[in-house]
Amino acid sequence: MKIGVFGTGIVGRTIAARLVELGHSVSMGTRSPADTLARSGPDPMGNEPVSAWLKQHPQIKLVPYAEAAREGEILVNATNGSGSLDALRAAGEGNLNGKILMDISNPLDFSRGMPPTLFISNTDSLGEQIQRTFANLKVVKTLNTMNAQLMVNPRSLADGNHTVFLSGNDAGAKETVTTLLRSFGWKDILDLGDIGTARGVEMYLPVWLRMWSALQIPSFQIKVVR
Amino acid sequence: MKIGVFGTGIVGRTIAARLVELGHSVSMGTRSPADTLARSGPDPMGNEPVSAWLKQHPQIKLVPYAEAAREGEILVNATNGSGSLDALRAAGEGNLNGKILMDISNPLDFSRGMPPTLFISNTDSLGEQIQRTFANLKVVKTLNTMNAQLMVNPRSLADGNHTVFLSGNDAGAKETVTTLLRSFGWKDILDLGDIGTARGVEMYLPVWLRMWSALQIPSFQIKVVR
Repeated sequence: MKIGVFGTGIVGRTIAARLVELGHSVSMGTRSPADTLARSGPDPMGNEPVSAWLKQHPQIKLVPYAEAAREGEILVNATNGSGSLDALRAAGEGNLNGKILMDISNPLDFSRGMPPTLFISNTDSLGEQIQRTFANLKVVKTLNTMNAQLMVNPRSLADGNHTVFLSGNDAGAKETVTTLLRSFGWKDILDLGDIGTARGVEMYLPVWLRMWSALQIPSFQIKVVR
Repeated sequence: MKIGVFGTGIVGRTIAARLVELGHSVSMGTRSPADTLARSGPDPMGNEPVSAWLKQHPQIKLVPYAEAAREGEILVNATNGSGSLDALRAAGEGNLNGKILMDISNPLDFSRGMPPTLFISNTDSLGEQIQRTFANLKVVKTLNTMNAQLMVNPRSLADGNHTVFLSGNDAGAKETVTTLLRSFGWKDILDLGDIGTARGVEMYLPVWLRMWSALQIPSFQIKVVR
């Protein structure tokens, strides 16, 4: 399939590379490809510049958000939560309408230091905000509760015996996303319900961050035992 | 040991009964034993009146908070989160000083309907508030992330192969609580760090509530796979 991945950080890169590996055609969206390619140092998280990374992934095209949205049959929001709505506005509502958006982002606020807090929580969520703002987009919140490597290679930990959540209003969109998740290797996919349940999975981040700090390993996950 | 359990709801009752079963001496604290015993109908959650329940648990004494605090070597906060600080104030700081408080409560706010929101979150937690308010109490947040039956009988699900969290500033207090948890049957006890990490486990409640709604079973839990 043709997939548009929004975001050039570690999550966007990891998802994009895995999708290519699985035979999909990937357009990676950014605000300004020229500006993104001009960055020569590592990004704030210490990752190599996008230009260097793209040389190792020549099948991936770096394009403006609008073009990634237009070309993608499915879209993936892997931008920073704080920039997600702006990125989608830049893509243009006309290019988004009717499409499925896998929303992987988290509303993390680093302005108060570490660990980050959430800039939306409790009575609203970023997933819901995106769905409200773009009513004709089929938003499916998923994969926001683990590190990037586990998102796309769940079987690298405990043979994939752990859980990923789904939240969204459109049953067909959730079915398509489920198929994609299974192709990544996911076995235990728990549908929590409508996009309102994104509030739950986004509020999971604070305990995830504290587990990360306590365990001192990047590869951990939760299994819903029932 | 002598244990003071604050709260007469389903969590307080379940913990108290299990502690008696394990050979401990339990005082159950309430604001006014006379008022609590006078209630003849089921409680707001549909549980039988405390008076009827106590007849089946004659070893458990119903006493004012201050007496439960004075008599207990270890204290358990199983009150509604919205009433926790008031209950501890009623117990009296002098009766609390130097003691361990297992804090099982959650800051649930039912005023906006179901599922409840949190009345403290993101930049603070109830566990931290209790620790700040009673500086000489050794607060250990734990067991707030599952239903009451699983708290005290974890092996009733998947032979106990799931995780309970610990948050607290005092290493000795966490050791004592760990011993108590092991006596309940807990095998996987994950120490997240100081009481600041209570923010994480309290913010887990919104996703727990949504899992409960999606799974439609009371007995589920998470295992931290690592």
